[in-house]
Formats: sequence, C-alpha cells, structure tokens
Amino acid sequence: MSDLPKRVFIDEEGPREGFQSEPLGITVANKVRLIEALAETGLKRINCVSYVNPRRVPSMADAEEVAAGIRRKPGVGYSALYLNQQGLERALKGPLDVHGSLRTYASETFSRKNIGKSLPDGFIEQRGWMPIFRQHHIPVEWGIVLGAFGCNYEGDMAPEVVALRVQQILDEAKLLGVTIRGIKLTDATGWATPLRVERAIGAVRERFPDLEISLHLHDTRGTGMAAAYAGLQLGVTKFDSSIAGLGGCPFAATDGAVGNICTEDFAFMCEEMGVATGLDVDKLIEVAKVAEEVVGRPLPGHVMRGGTLKAAKQRASQRAAA
Amino acid sequence: MSDLPKRVFIDEEGPREGFQSEPLGITVANKVRLIEALAETGLKRINCVSYVNPRRVPSMADAEEVAAGIRRKPGVGYSALYLNQQGLERALKGPLDVHGSLRTYASETFSRKNIGKSLPDGFIEQRGWMPIFRQHHIPVEWGIVLGAFGCNYEGDMAPEVVALRVQQILDEAKLLGVTIRGIKLTDATGWATPLRVERAIGAVRERFPDLEISLHLHDTRGTGMAAAYAGLQLGVTKFDSSIAGLGGCPFAATDGAVGNICTEDFAFMCEEMGVATGLDVDKLIEVAKVAEEVVGRPLPGHVMRGGTLKAAKQRASQRAAA
Repeated sequence: MSDLPKRVFIDEEGPREGFQSEPLGITVANKVRLIEALAETGLKRINCVSYVNPRRVPSMADAEEVAAGIRRKPGVGYSALYLNQQGLERALKGPLDVHGSLRTYASETFSRKNIGKSLPDGFIEQRGWMPIFRQHHIPVEWGIVLGAFGCNYEGDMAPEVVALRVQQILDEAKLLGVTIRGIKLTDATGWATPLRVERAIGAVRERFPDLEISLHLHDTRGTGMAAAYAGLQLGVTKFDSSIAGLGGCPFAATDGAVGNICTEDFAFMCEEMGVATGLDVDKLIEVAKVAEEVVGRPLPGHVMRGGTLKAAKQRASQRAAA
Repeated sequence: MSDLPKRVFIDEEGPREGFQSEPLGITVANKVRLIEALAETGLKRINCVSYVNPRRVPSMADAEEVAAGIRRKPGVGYSALYLNQQGLERALKGPLDVHGSLRTYASETFSRKNIGKSLPDGFIEQRGWMPIFRQHHIPVEWGIVLGAFGCNYEGDMAPEVVALRVQQILDEAKLLGVTIRGIKLTDATGWATPLRVERAIGAVRERFPDLEISLHLHDTRGTGMAAAYAGLQLGVTKFDSSIAGLGGCPFAATDGAVGNICTEDFAFMCEEMGVATGLDVDKLIEVAKVAEEVVGRPLPGHVMRGGTLKAAKQRASQRAAA
C-alpha cells in the first residue's frame, strides 16, 4: 500500500548546525565526543564543523581543533562546511572530507544578506574554487539551492524560481565542465510546508526528471516532519537532519531559529513506515541524550522522551506467544 | 495542485488534556484565564475539564470550580470529558456542554487497563447512559475508537481491527436507536505515523465511506504533524489539538507522555497550505505564551518561537511595491 521509498540516506548536521548556534563554552572534547558517538549509530556522513569567520561565528573558532580531534570510524564520512575560498582552504588543510558543490540562493536578497553577494557574483566566486577542486580530485556532483521554499526578505519562492535556479546551476556546471547529479533544496528559515515541498520538487522534477533531490529542512515552525514526509511521498531518498533537533541558523532573521528536523524522530518515523534508514534508533536516542548533556539544556527531540515502540512490541509478542 | 480540504475544524484539547497531566498547583483562576483566552482565537470548541476520579487525577479535582468560573463567549462550545456514569452525572450538573458518544478501544487490553472493563462491558456500561442522554436531549452522533493506531500492551493495531471496532460501534448504535455520523480515531500513546493513519482511515473508509472521520493525535514521538498531514491528504476535516502542545495521558504506559499536536503549529501549517481553519494564528501564539506562563515551563510548540511568516511576507510585499 505504501509508495514510500524502500531506503533513505540521512546525513547528520547536528554538530555543524548545532554548535554554530549554541552559546560559547562547549569544549572541543565534548564536540568530538558527540561526533564520535554519532559515528556509532549507522550514520554514513556527519557534518562536523564550519570553516567560517570566527569573528562572525565565534563558536566555530575551534573548527581545526575539533576536526583534528576526531578518531575516525572506517566507512563514515566526516565533512565540513565552507562558504568562501578562505574557508575552503582551511578545510583542505584539515583532515575532514571536502565536498565540492555549486551553490546558489533562491532569493537574491538572502544571498546578499548571507554572503554579501548577488547570485551571479556567487557563481563567479565559486568559479575560482574549481581549479582547487580539480587539484585535490574533489568531484562537484551536487547543486544546492538555499532558501528554496521562501525567504524572510522576499517572501514565498515560486516553484518556477526554484527550477530556474536549478537551470542556472546546470548552466554554470556546463561552463565549468562538471556534471551535477542531484540538487539539495534547503530551508534554513523554516518556510517549508508539505505543500511548498511538493510544489518545489514538482517544478524541479518537471524540468529535470533525472536529477536526484535531497532535502535539508528545519523545524522552525513545527512543519518539518510533515514536510519531510511530503518529500518521502515524492520518492526523495536523501535528507539532512540533526541529532535531538540541535541547531539553528544565526543569520536567517528568524527569531528563535531552530535546528533541522530531528535525526532520531525522522529515522523512527521512517523505520515505523518500513522505510529503511540503516540507523539504530535506540543508539541515536542515547546520542541525543549525549547532545543534551553537551549543550546543557533540553533539546526538542520527541522519541528520546517518548521512547521507541520496541519494548511495547516485544511485550505484545510475548503476550501473543503466551 | 493541492487536493487538501478547503476548510478544517480544530477542537482545542489543551485545558482538558493539559491540566490533567500537569503537576498540581495551577490555580482555578489560571485555568479559567487560559480557557477564556482560547475562546478569543476563533476556536469553536474547547474541551475544558475531565470529570474523573479526583483520587486518580488529583489535578482535575477542581473541575466543577473551573467549569463554573468560565465566562462563556457566545458561539463557542465548552465541553467536558467523562469516563463513567458518575462523571457524566457530574458533567450534567455543571454548566459545560455534554456530548454523547459511543466509545470503544481498538485494544481489549488498553480498555482493561484504562477503564478496567472488557470491550463488551464497555458498551454495556454506556447503554446505561442512554436514558440520561435522552432525558437531557443530548444527541449521540460520534463514535470514538481509542488507541486506534497501536497499543502499548498489544502492539500494532491491524487496520481491519479498527474497521471492526467501527462496525461494533455502529451495531451498538443500531441497538440503541441512535445514528452515528462520524468516527474519531484517537492515539493517546503516540503510535500514529502517516502510514498507520493512511491504513486505518483506508480500512474504515472502505467499509464505511459515508462516515466522517476525526483525528486525535499526540506528538509523543515527533510524528504527530506528519500523521495529521496524512489525514489532511485523505480529506479529514476534523482534528483535535492542544495549545502549545500542552498535555499527556497519565495512564498510557508511555514514558514522558506528550500532548496532542500543537494547535498553533497545526493551524499555521494548514493556513500556509491554503486550508482555512477559522483561527487567528497570531492570537493562538499569544495564548500559547499564556499557557507557558500558567504551567510555569516551556511547552513544545514551535511557531510560538519561530514566529509566523506574516512579518516576512509584509516586508516582502513592501519591497515589491517600492
């Protein structure tokens, strides 16, 4: 009866998204502890740090130390975010995986506010990174449309604008001689509803049916899980999420910016619907509690408090067998 | 492009669900304050108190006082829950609206644990209430299947079992000479995923296509909003929810029982998708903050912190006009 995908891939954003928006005072050891604990849950990619300006994001000033401190588990990717060439060069000096991409914003204004550049200037900047990618054998396979579902400055994003941005990414990729296989649609400011997700993906799919789609959703207004479910219904198999719901975006002009959808809640929902995640939800719950310890406050995850249904199901099958 | 309903009706469960699970110490005046504030938001039905055994639920010992204290706003219904004849008689002595219904549990064991009766005994008990309903001209138009999506004792509920319970309600209604027009499916223990909602509603609809369906969902494991969205997609137009996500079910054998889906988050999601709720989301957010004041702790609602998109949309239209 379900048309949901059989398998999804969940990338963990908690450390990167989370620590950048938490107040100072989390030790490098605690950041590393959380990242290493996440690696034991089945996650195959953990976004660990942002190589951003420590004056703008003081909580990421220790990015090099955190990256250096991680004992890597074989088979797990440990990645880093960078937003400019300086960040890219810092990332390349460190031990984490560096991924190439072509990024643009759905909204011109959000681009100017977030990186101080127009959309064309954003592409021009990234052109400068291509020789670096080539030199380091870093493939550029994904496009990213930031703020794909709405903008706190420009309002609703028409699905056609999102499709246009995808076209612009593909045009730029052609110019640079790289092949894009998928597009990540992001929503740091919490505009995504299930309907906005459906419409944006619909517009992209209509013009570019062969592109994979990935969703990076925040739960700013309580619609994140429903929006992710809308993505599942459309066959999306790649999602970003954040352990315990850790995180936020410090420059998104949203009061009380909130983290990504919660990793363990989303994994729980998927598994309960027969959508395999490759993740151990019980272990994720343990790590969600570590995340609360590390940041020293309750985090918004639900299943870490409500518990999985495993014990109830076991009780039920014992009753049935008795 | 959207097949969602044009209009939904949201009943507020916050005071009833919420105060019953909160620790003691919330004054009658504060309970009344919250209920009266809720009445200013567009809500047409507010479930205010439970007439339950004050030894089992001490926080509801003041039900009579709360009910008596409410200044009623014309056009708003103020209702009460009762679980046995004693509760029904207390409700009838008070000023709140008393609604008839025929209740049963999906799970026999949940029925025994929650009301100490088998399913047939549950119907037999309710037969005793019918003369009282008749005497007071109280219609019996809704059936309720409690724990429709799973049971902490019996595990998953097969959709066919839910449809069977509906049949049993309709059989009982026939015997009693009342006409059931709709079925409420409830989930106090947080088993509902979008898929379980789809399957249960599918099974009920297949056999009883003319019955209205109402959903009473809890967000115990973070799946509540996605499950509600699945209901919307199936054309469900009646939902229960709880301001700020207030609440829980004290006898559901779930650690950290959690409230209904959050009224203002759900209303926000609906309105953003073009589904009219008749509710003023900004006013709901104000009342959600009142709810936090009254219970003296942060509640799980999201849009009360993230803010609506109204300011951003206004800013955007001013920019567009400039």
